[in-house]
Amino acid sequence: MSAEKETTKKSGPESELRQDIVTGDWVVIATGRAKRPDAFVQAERVLAREEFDPFEHPEESGQEKDVLIYRRDDGEWSLRVFPNKFPAFSRGKPVKELSEGPYFAMNGVGYHELVVTRDPRRSLPLLETWQVAEVLDAYQDRFLALMNRKSVNYIQVIHNHGKEAGASLAHPHSQLMAIPVVSPYIELELEGAERYYKSNKQKVYRVIAEYESKEKKRVVFENEHFIAFCPFASRGAFEMMIVGKRNNPYFERITEEEKFACAEVLQKALQALYAGLNDPAYNFYIHSAPCDGRDYPHYQWHIEILPHTATWGGFELATGIEVSTIEPETAAEYLRSKLVS
Amino acid sequence: MSAEKETTKKSGPESELRQDIVTGDWVVIATGRAKRPDAFVQAERVLAREEFDPFEHPEESGQEKDVLIYRRDDGEWSLRVFPNKFPAFSRGKPVKELSEGPYFAMNGVGYHELVVTRDPRRSLPLLETWQVAEVLDAYQDRFLALMNRKSVNYIQVIHNHGKEAGASLAHPHSQLMAIPVVSPYIELELEGAERYYKSNKQKVYRVIAEYESKEKKRVVFENEHFIAFCPFASRGAFEMMIVGKRNNPYFERITEEEKFACAEVLQKALQALYAGLNDPAYNFYIHSAPCDGRDYPHYQWHIEILPHTATWGGFELATGIEVSTIEPETAAEYLRSKLVS
Repeated sequence: MSAEKETTKKSGPESELRQDIVTGDWVVIATGRAKRPDAFVQAERVLAREEFDPFEHPEESGQEKDVLIYRRDDGEWSLRVFPNKFPAFSRGKPVKELSEGPYFAMNGVGYHELVVTRDPRRSLPLLETWQVAEVLDAYQDRFLALMNRKSVNYIQVIHNHGKEAGASLAHPHSQLMAIPVVSPYIELELEGAERYYKSNKQKVYRVIAEYESKEKKRVVFENEHFIAFCPFASRGAFEMMIVGKRNNPYFERITEEEKFACAEVLQKALQALYAGLNDPAYNFYIHSAPCDGRDYPHYQWHIEILPHTATWGGFELATGIEVSTIEPETAAEYLRSKLVS
Repeated sequence: MSAEKETTKKSGPESELRQDIVTGDWVVIATGRAKRPDAFVQAERVLAREEFDPFEHPEESGQEKDVLIYRRDDGEWSLRVFPNKFPAFSRGKPVKELSEGPYFAMNGVGYHELVVTRDPRRSLPLLETWQVAEVLDAYQDRFLALMNRKSVNYIQVIHNHGKEAGASLAHPHSQLMAIPVVSPYIELELEGAERYYKSNKQKVYRVIAEYESKEKKRVVFENEHFIAFCPFASRGAFEMMIVGKRNNPYFERITEEEKFACAEVLQKALQALYAGLNDPAYNFYIHSAPCDGRDYPHYQWHIEILPHTATWGGFELATGIEVSTIEPETAAEYLRSKLVS
């Protein structure tokens, strides 16, 4: 990678256009405007606690009954899954077409659930690893419970941390949406994986994971089963991706052993962010093959972590080309130095 | 559109999945969580002025010489175009491939310019219409100057208003980037326009403009040459799109008469936003066919206006499906009521 060489030159372009190997999308790494990693450290964040925490008192807050509950040995709950009181998708009649003139629409049938860990103050990097594994457990349980329901063709798990990342409640929680349509970003990845396989007779996510594991410079943490790294074409500063080392398109087919290994890698990645950038806001989410009855043998489920470090302006919104002001290699080196052992 | 009927029902889905007719992408209109239009009114915004405005004193701020200057009758400048001091793309050597392992990259060759109007306090809705037309004039001049340069295959004009929308300077300015790659979003629109034409033997943007003009309920303002409306599949509250009534894929081929008509529609749209939401932050940008030497007969250049009214959380980032909490029909009605005559 000639990025370092480029920046030493007095004239000429001071940015790189990097292409996402799966989707074909572009990002700009603005090396000429590059910042030092510590320029991204957040001013101290006060964890806003709600006056009334609906997850601590679910019965009093009119919260619908939980659909899943995990208990500790002492009988107290440690994790609960609730239907979202304000769902973007809700149960009900099957998908109904609602067309108007040349346009197509349908009603938003589906499931929208909240996966809540007990401690209102401790986000994932601050929990025990077994508790993070329990969160993955809950995701898997709900995938398995919902994936064969009528009108469910795709399941999206997301986790928003911090107001700037869209979290409306400070109490740590993830969201799971089971929806009738396959998302455009997943379509792009599925097509890209297929295209790459046709051209190269190799599975693209395997190529990435093996190359990054060998090359090391963008790796943040890896163990026997998973690897976390800053993608070559990172869309934002300190973006990370977590990919498994076994070919598996479907998150819900994760094994027990892999689940604990994944929890370790996810937690190390989030701890490095927490320590390195002073508890920044972030989103992470799972990309997994659709549950629409089709096979996706060349795909690979994975986690993407996007810290909220910059505002996407008009250029990003207009083009879909994101501009990042730190090289992924520099970001990864910094995050590695902040790993909690 | 059965949205109104849907919301009166006691049970069942309280959202709609609407599909973008061009790209095939989905949005969620969360009618169950719908807000009244005035819920989006911004708390009073103080226009942050910089201590030192580099555009008022370009010579002292080390700003490179302007590449275009318009003067008033009294000889004072009214609009200037500067090379960006901190370019994401810069002049220099031709495109060079920078590959690493399985990945592809190239240096960020191109042009990154700033289009600056004189008054540091008056944003586009507050200018005279002829001044807005002058801004469009400058866009066109720079399109024509750069489109045939080596390594330029696509030109993106953007305008960020307000810090939340990514504007780093309060002095009103637009940005123009002339770049070697065609942006992913334009590719999607080009493909969609082509696909629609193959299936329907009609140009999709013509179908949209004619349907909206006839239907009226999503129209904010229209004149003889242009129409501004809230798209059926709006990605956010109060999104607007401005489309011409004559088939023309290329912004740079806008006529003088059209330019003034477009300035009027753009200004009316921005004035309605300014009055209706109390000067919210917004982005607008032009989508125009690439200048890569190919023909795009079924495309149509247009303007998209995206007010910054919500934070995109993990679901939007994970899926590319945006959730909006106001119906485009309601947003358009509200904006119409705020038009300045």
